[in-house]
Amino acid sequence: MADVSTCLPLTRESAIEAHKVIEPLVHLTPVMSGATLSKMASTPKTGVINPAKPVIRLWFKCENLQRIGAFKARGAFYAIEKLKQDSTWLEGGGMQNGVVGFSSGNHAQALALAARESGIPAYIVMPDIVRPNKIEATKGYGAEVVLCGRFEREIAASRIVAEKGARLVPPFDHPDIILGQASVGLELQEQVKVDAIIAPCSGGGLLSGVALSCEGTGIRVFGAEPEFEGADDVRRGFLAGKRITEVKTSTIADGLMGTVGVHTWGVIYERKLVSAMYAVTEEEILEATKLIMERMKLVIEPSAAVPLAVALYNEEFRKMVEEEAGEAGWDIGIVLSGGNVSIEGLANLFAAK
Amino acid sequence: MADVSTCLPLTRESAIEAHKVIEPLVHLTPVMSGATLSKMASTPKTGVINPAKPVIRLWFKCENLQRIGAFKARGAFYAIEKLKQDSTWLEGGGMQNGVVGFSSGNHAQALALAARESGIPAYIVMPDIVRPNKIEATKGYGAEVVLCGRFEREIAASRIVAEKGARLVPPFDHPDIILGQASVGLELQEQVKVDAIIAPCSGGGLLSGVALSCEGTGIRVFGAEPEFEGADDVRRGFLAGKRITEVKTSTIADGLMGTVGVHTWGVIYERKLVSAMYAVTEEEILEATKLIMERMKLVIEPSAAVPLAVALYNEEFRKMVEEEAGEAGWDIGIVLSGGNVSIEGLANLFAAK
Repeated sequence: MADVSTCLPLTRESAIEAHKVIEPLVHLTPVMSGATLSKMASTPKTGVINPAKPVIRLWFKCENLQRIGAFKARGAFYAIEKLKQDSTWLEGGGMQNGVVGFSSGNHAQALALAARESGIPAYIVMPDIVRPNKIEATKGYGAEVVLCGRFEREIAASRIVAEKGARLVPPFDHPDIILGQASVGLELQEQVKVDAIIAPCSGGGLLSGVALSCEGTGIRVFGAEPEFEGADDVRRGFLAGKRITEVKTSTIADGLMGTVGVHTWGVIYERKLVSAMYAVTEEEILEATKLIMERMKLVIEPSAAVPLAVALYNEEFRKMVEEEAGEAGWDIGIVLSGGNVSIEGLANLFAAK
Repeated sequence: MADVSTCLPLTRESAIEAHKVIEPLVHLTPVMSGATLSKMASTPKTGVINPAKPVIRLWFKCENLQRIGAFKARGAFYAIEKLKQDSTWLEGGGMQNGVVGFSSGNHAQALALAARESGIPAYIVMPDIVRPNKIEATKGYGAEVVLCGRFEREIAASRIVAEKGARLVPPFDHPDIILGQASVGLELQEQVKVDAIIAPCSGGGLLSGVALSCEGTGIRVFGAEPEFEGADDVRRGFLAGKRITEVKTSTIADGLMGTVGVHTWGVIYERKLVSAMYAVTEEEILEATKLIMERMKLVIEPSAAVPLAVALYNEEFRKMVEEEAGEAGWDIGIVLSGGNVSIEGLANLFAAK
């Protein structure tokens, strides 16, 4: 990864520069409207005393239709392009030594693809408990997969850095990754006029990127997390006034199990670029997943349903919209972050209900 | 339904006229490319002696993203618009007496929606074994649902015609329905240059419509059916040289259980506007459904996967493409006809494997 000191500052201007770099490399994903879901979001909840009466028009930014099936392609492509502009890295044989990432999820495939398209070797460290189809998918993008024990992936990655001279590309907590993900927000703003955007938050790369893309525009940005077993570390961090660094959760939103990083927390909380964080239950996430599949006809991973769950079910969020937006209501962008889920995985989720 | 004698002739010109009428009422659905699936379609099958080596580039016409989640909206809207131009119907109180349809599937919702948007009452006859969510969806579009015994729906529909003076709108075997569905093919031709189109076939409204839309253009049209328990009635009809009128099948492609109609057979077979019919197995349909969901991130009903299954697995089709298209290959349009499936239904399909 490019040295942090060489990165562009974390501003909307830098995000626009990053977007220009990756525009030819990633998909301009479509934005879909959803009349039925907007109507549901604008309907007061039943069984609640004094329910919120927000007026909400929903717009879905379909990053599940992005390359590799998730927004992660954006940050990975930008990170690789930035490395290729780094003369020290090039002179040190970077193009031959390659890059290394640790991920059992979408970052693995994103980095593998971005590296392959530049002819750079990629080593992906994965825990040995990961499902075989994820290993195959990552190998399918041309990466060498290195399996390791569940809690040894950072050590395994360091070993590859030492042995191969490969450069580590972290999954979220780096300015280049954040600036790459920011393109989600910039595109959305070009595609439709929104008053607010809700993005899911795990390490915070996507949420901080979207927040940067909205800086100075007046568009509010909100973060969405699962609440199960404390997975809402950023929401709790907002309340405590400090970053929470450890969480152990088994939420069905399995892309949102991580804790927020240092750079991402800086953008999200310290710079106050995210207005508020909201959390939802496992049942609400399942229901929102089902609604997007049945009504929008889009396959998403449960993590991607968390922002819609906030808009539909989080009464605190809904009260806020009612108060802030009034009768005119808000156009709200919902980031559908990814769609990498096996059909057997989905079948298990919904057969178990 | 408008009297057949008053319908436009079944030609490409008429399809263009019909398209103009319904263009403001239906979605221009997107066409998606699929690099991975195109590569799979262009890869010879393993475990086969002398496998076909076709070169295939696939383009997916996303009618699962159409209003009500299926192409059926097109025919229903056109049928209603034509009725509204019929002075005899209007003078007979048609707008008040309403329309009636029998369907447990997508035609029910399509007719309900099209009627509601014109302020016309709609009566939908459904067998009493239909799942409650289908009844609710149809009621949700403002129709009155009339339940009847499984084999009594035509009688029940006739009774409503007699009692209410409502006009029957058949699901496929009528020129107006065929001309409405033809807009799928016209749009696809405007969106991407294809050499061939594969559409699924049950009653044949979609397939005959697509065939008309391609008349005189040089684009070949192929029909796709499940083979399970003789569901491939049109393929068998081609071989026998006559229309097969009865089939009892429980294929998982539950939208393709019907037999071809008189008008549709005329276009498909007698006028030779469909080049050939191909059939696939239940396992192939399941696998194609899974691929579209996992790779394209689109929710489809199994019936909609049948054309892709032909392109990927039907060796007779693949040989034909190899011979006809040679090394240059073909761009093939695949009609994803609909996406109305419950997530529990999908879970059962794939959990059972």
